[in-house]
Amino acid sequence: MEQIGIGVIGTGFMGKAHARAYNAVFSAYPDLALQPKLVGVADINGEAAKRTAVQFGFERHTSDWKSLIVDPEIKIISITTPNVMHREMAVAAAQAGKHIHCEKPLAPTAIDAKAMLDAANSAGVMTQVGYNYIKNPLLKLAKQMIADGELGEITSFRGVHAEDYMADPKILFDWRVDGSGGEGGAIQEIGSHIIGIARFLLGNIVEISADLETVLKTRPDADGTPRKVMVDDVARMIVRFDGGFSGSIEANWLATGRKMQLGFEVSGTKGSLAFTQEHLNELLYYRAGDPAREAGFSRIETGPQHPPYANFCPTAGHQLGFNDLKTIEMAEFLTAIAGGARNGPEFLEAYAIQNVIDAALRSSKERSWVTVK
Amino acid sequence: MEQIGIGVIGTGFMGKAHARAYNAVFSAYPDLALQPKLVGVADINGEAAKRTAVQFGFERHTSDWKSLIVDPEIKIISITTPNVMHREMAVAAAQAGKHIHCEKPLAPTAIDAKAMLDAANSAGVMTQVGYNYIKNPLLKLAKQMIADGELGEITSFRGVHAEDYMADPKILFDWRVDGSGGEGGAIQEIGSHIIGIARFLLGNIVEISADLETVLKTRPDADGTPRKVMVDDVARMIVRFDGGFSGSIEANWLATGRKMQLGFEVSGTKGSLAFTQEHLNELLYYRAGDPAREAGFSRIETGPQHPPYANFCPTAGHQLGFNDLKTIEMAEFLTAIAGGARNGPEFLEAYAIQNVIDAALRSSKERSWVTVK
Amino acid sequence: MEQIGIGVIGTGFMGKAHARAYNAVFSAYPDLALQPKLVGVADINGEAAKRTAVQFGFERHTSDWKSLIVDPEIKIISITTPNVMHREMAVAAAQAGKHIHCEKPLAPTAIDAKAMLDAANSAGVMTQVGYNYIKNPLLKLAKQMIADGELGEITSFRGVHAEDYMADPKILFDWRVDGSGGEGGAIQEIGSHIIGIARFLLGNIVEISADLETVLKTRPDADGTPRKVMVDDVARMIVRFDGGFSGSIEANWLATGRKMQLGFEVSGTKGSLAFTQEHLNELLYYRAGDPAREAGFSRIETGPQHPPYANFCPTAGHQLGFNDLKTIEMAEFLTAIAGGARNGPEFLEAYAIQNVIDAALRSSKERSWVTVK
Amino acid sequence: MEQIGIGVIGTGFMGKAHARAYNAVFSAYPDLALQPKLVGVADINGEAAKRTAVQFGFERHTSDWKSLIVDPEIKIISITTPNVMHREMAVAAAQAGKHIHCEKPLAPTAIDAKAMLDAANSAGVMTQVGYNYIKNPLLKLAKQMIADGELGEITSFRGVHAEDYMADPKILFDWRVDGSGGEGGAIQEIGSHIIGIARFLLGNIVEISADLETVLKTRPDADGTPRKVMVDDVARMIVRFDGGFSGSIEANWLATGRKMQLGFEVSGTKGSLAFTQEHLNELLYYRAGDPAREAGFSRIETGPQHPPYANFCPTAGHQLGFNDLKTIEMAEFLTAIAGGARNGPEFLEAYAIQNVIDAALRSSKERSWVTVK
Repeated sequence: MEQIGIGVIGTGFMGKAHARAYNAVFSAYPDLALQPKLVGVADINGEAAKRTAVQFGFERHTSDWKSLIVDPEIKIISITTPNVMHREMAVAAAQAGKHIHCEKPLAPTAIDAKAMLDAANSAGVMTQVGYNYIKNPLLKLAKQMIADGELGEITSFRGVHAEDYMADPKILFDWRVDGSGGEGGAIQEIGSHIIGIARFLLGNIVEISADLETVLKTRPDADGTPRKVMVDDVARMIVRFDGGFSGSIEANWLATGRKMQLGFEVSGTKGSLAFTQEHLNELLYYRAGDPAREAGFSRIETGPQHPPYANFCPTAGHQLGFNDLKTIEMAEFLTAIAGGARNGPEFLEAYAIQNVIDAALRSSKERSWVTVK
Repeated sequence: MEQIGIGVIGTGFMGKAHARAYNAVFSAYPDLALQPKLVGVADINGEAAKRTAVQFGFERHTSDWKSLIVDPEIKIISITTPNVMHREMAVAAAQAGKHIHCEKPLAPTAIDAKAMLDAANSAGVMTQVGYNYIKNPLLKLAKQMIADGELGEITSFRGVHAEDYMADPKILFDWRVDGSGGEGGAIQEIGSHIIGIARFLLGNIVEISADLETVLKTRPDADGTPRKVMVDDVARMIVRFDGGFSGSIEANWLATGRKMQLGFEVSGTKGSLAFTQEHLNELLYYRAGDPAREAGFSRIETGPQHPPYANFCPTAGHQLGFNDLKTIEMAEFLTAIAGGARNGPEFLEAYAIQNVIDAALRSSKERSWVTVK
Repeated sequence: MEQIGIGVIGTGFMGKAHARAYNAVFSAYPDLALQPKLVGVADINGEAAKRTAVQFGFERHTSDWKSLIVDPEIKIISITTPNVMHREMAVAAAQAGKHIHCEKPLAPTAIDAKAMLDAANSAGVMTQVGYNYIKNPLLKLAKQMIADGELGEITSFRGVHAEDYMADPKILFDWRVDGSGGEGGAIQEIGSHIIGIARFLLGNIVEISADLETVLKTRPDADGTPRKVMVDDVARMIVRFDGGFSGSIEANWLATGRKMQLGFEVSGTKGSLAFTQEHLNELLYYRAGDPAREAGFSRIETGPQHPPYANFCPTAGHQLGFNDLKTIEMAEFLTAIAGGARNGPEFLEAYAIQNVIDAALRSSKERSWVTVK
Repeated sequence: MEQIGIGVIGTGFMGKAHARAYNAVFSAYPDLALQPKLVGVADINGEAAKRTAVQFGFERHTSDWKSLIVDPEIKIISITTPNVMHREMAVAAAQAGKHIHCEKPLAPTAIDAKAMLDAANSAGVMTQVGYNYIKNPLLKLAKQMIADGELGEITSFRGVHAEDYMADPKILFDWRVDGSGGEGGAIQEIGSHIIGIARFLLGNIVEISADLETVLKTRPDADGTPRKVMVDDVARMIVRFDGGFSGSIEANWLATGRKMQLGFEVSGTKGSLAFTQEHLNELLYYRAGDPAREAGFSRIETGPQHPPYANFCPTAGHQLGFNDLKTIEMAEFLTAIAGGARNGPEFLEAYAIQNVIDAALRSSKERSWVTVK
């Protein structure tokens, strides 16, 4: 067992989630070759950095993220700042030889993502991007069942990620809707999750026809003046996979009442799977060919038979939560750094997701089908 | 109370469903001004016509549908034959001055539908088309709640009708997949339902971008020879309503495990509604602004407070079934004929639905957005 | 095909439900040897009788139920009046040689039920009692699966029938709560259903420990005076079946929010079944021994593979409703009268149910286990 | 911030769960006055102790639990060994002045529990018992809603804890079924949870009628010889609360297919709540008096409005898992030790739960109602 130094940039929801997961990872994965050590945390708000250091046990804190980059004790940089800052930070970290865990979406545009990918490749560092939902043991199961042919030939995919955190027209204009980095809105922030899941389960998306809609045309700024929203509230996509089948994907941050309607249904000639993150410990499975009188969708509940559930609990029925998914993510990143399996998603995969988003933006603007780069 | 003579053409699932509903309608709606009388039933298979006549109490049966058209005792013709035969029958019935109930979809193409509509208009007869699912008391409630502004401004619609009755690649090639009338496949047969529901709830669809996919390229004919499938198995649409909002619609008859995944979610700034025909006696409703600690989707169960549920049962908790929806449909048709409310959907509405389907076929072929006529 | 004359006593919810079902039965069961003919309907309120006659097509109506009994054209008497009147009517009908369909619960007490049973047996007439919920194709499936050993050895039963129609303390004192016939409250009115289901699935209940509670001690009469409630609002029972296993049963008419929480879970060494009438077209089934990674409760949806669903609809996904269950009930009664299968429940079974209720009343009073007669 | 030394006895599921929670607690509750420090872990299997020490970062490990008791650096002892060993360990810990967290159920019998309670009281140490499910933010909400009168007068409680981990007759005879400590089986192991929840929500249970059944009379020992099972597989209870209302409780470890059917329904004159641990992030709530057309059970999803959810995640829709509940438990114990709120459940409460269990054992044996001590 060896320790590896961690530096976390950002102390918001995700900054804390990373720190929490790094703290939890070793006891969940006692066979990990590398044990994370929280060395430094940075936040432009120095007080926040300090508080977070105390909260999670970082040895140092700073208001200057660059000091983490140059810290020789730090080998892994976690980037959890807003999207537009990812590129600069990641490139600097890569150039300093740090392994990089960057929150999703990787960057505002595919161009930025490519620059980050190139920097990481040049430096030969390991990367990971925070698409935590695919770390769910049941999504691993879904992927395996599809790979094992249990669904037969895939005939259709339907994916959605809908929430309501922007549904209230009174929510103020802010960085999420100003589009200053050239990025999308809902498609970028939550659509990237369901696009990532689609790719995780079914492979490359090669063609896309998209409609990105700004439903709430303006939002008030702090003094009540309406400001023009520059990004999509709802993105609807029809997609073709290179496996030869098609699907639809929706991202929607105006879905009143929905807190985490992140789900999908995959159909094949021999079976189907359905999932929603609203019940993240359940996967629905229909097996064609079961005796007719008893056939139906089975509600599979997560248990120790679904790795890595048993790392958290030895018996069935004890559900995993969001933070556990984040712990799995960190464990897999550390495993990859230590030379083990590379489960990613690495920058390469996040770049591919960003290419789908860019294609959707282009398709919507041109009102036509486009090929994904 | 006056009797009105009924003639039913076709004795399959829908022919029987019509007869059953005509028989049930008066006791459910004792205040109806017109009581249906089953005069004649026609089927090209004369034995089937005879059996059906006995089963439902028709006075006469015939293998020649035209004899119903000329029967002076018959005032209403129910057309339940395959789609490609609707036009000839409906035009003949209209010209003979009969009111017409025609099963959905109205016709293979909008051209056919228009001819039927024109014939009915010229003759001044009443029409109805068998979009039974919108007869559900809870869909009436949904429409009313939207009209009452309970959802605020509508921001999104997501609709799907997915079943699996064509999912098995071994299902034989037949009229449903030969496209001989110029019609679609899944979009026509089940997509018309969800398009109809979208219009019922939210009004006109004015623009559409569609992808209609033939997933199973061939199906075997009776001797095992592969025949090329000419229609869509899965149709995915992005649609714009003239209310200024958008949505997506999917029709899919390969959805393994799904027997009646006909559902929707409508979101608005003040609330949302979600429904699936799999639980036809439930409507989910989220009201924005409820006290935070108690907010959530409510599961509204049908009861006597939701007309016309009480026509079937005076107390809550006793669920309606499919055949009851068909009874409502017939009651409303008879009401319209008697000069009461015209709830339709009449040929005009079914023509509008067909125009959406035609636009989708065109859009998919041209791979571009098209305007719905 | 032969017609058989029907007389219905009572024109409330159940009187109408019987008439509706008699009207529907022949087209659902065209092979029935006997076709019901609605001859007469009686209600002490002559106007109600008249309206009902018109609504359902009875040939005659009367305010004197005895005139139906003596009507030679009537061969079947349906008794749908309040519980306390069943005995007199049924005995008279039996003595007149009529077959008898009596609504549940059969009688206030087992003594009354026995008298009715004896009268029917002496007269050699066929009987049926309106426990409609067991007519559900999925309950027939459940019974069959248990009989086929798919659950292995039964280890436990949990049943409940909870509704909220008496939950409001302001509901007026009436015959349901005066206990004048010696009967129970919730246990009698709805508990009889779940007791009937328990027996239908699993056989005789031989021992019982019950607690019958009057939660709302008084209810106001019409002028607001509190009157003492004489019956149970909630009945809780622990029961032993003669198969050697045990279970629990609850009847509760104060269950705020519940409109039809009539359900059960049966566990066995090889499998389990769970059901609720809230989703009457679904049965949940867990098969022990399925591959671990895919095991889970399957949601079986009713379809034509579950007789007699296909009598109502030839294709899956089209749900049955309450009135359809009533139609099945009538069809099976007519079948029995015609010399076919006797599916019951006959008076003998209803008497057995009443014996369980009587035992529960006794157990609760004595606060001890009692043997069911 | 001050550190407090922890010693954990036992390294099974719960030993690890405690260690994991102690490690997680401070970052979730950064305002805690006391920060746990993992000082020592004991297991009779010294290797297991060593491995666990490494896994969770304990400073010391031992095969002799008594060495933790005498360790001056340790102020809190966590007892996670089998039930029969709790008393000796807890009494020793109390006498040594340690605060004690003991896993549930507290002890085999109320006599043992009382001895532990007395020892803790004499020593003036703080105690906590591992009834983690009540730490769920939604159960705290449920308790608060009941206390606030949102359900009106309570009319009924129905509780169940059913799992299937003993359902297979081939499971070997072991300490869980030998009854050597005088304890129950399912009632003790899982029934204690639902009894605890009933008390948490609704207060004291004062009278009980129980039926404890050994369904599988024998289980094989390692060489296949059948050994007589001495404890209950299924426990069914009818209970009276001192609030004047009643309920039922079931504990069942033979419930094939159920992994965590731990749930309840509480009804009152103004509302109802329903919950199952199978969906631990949801609480169903029915509010009587809502507008009739829109009334229904609302599915409340946990969010930051439900303390202490926000300690784990700042935004809605990110579900908590089992381990998070355990973290809340530890945080509240540390809070109590630091002089803050005493949320318990302390030994006093666990003793009360044990008294209910003892009463159930007595009632079942005597086949009569008994008063809970």
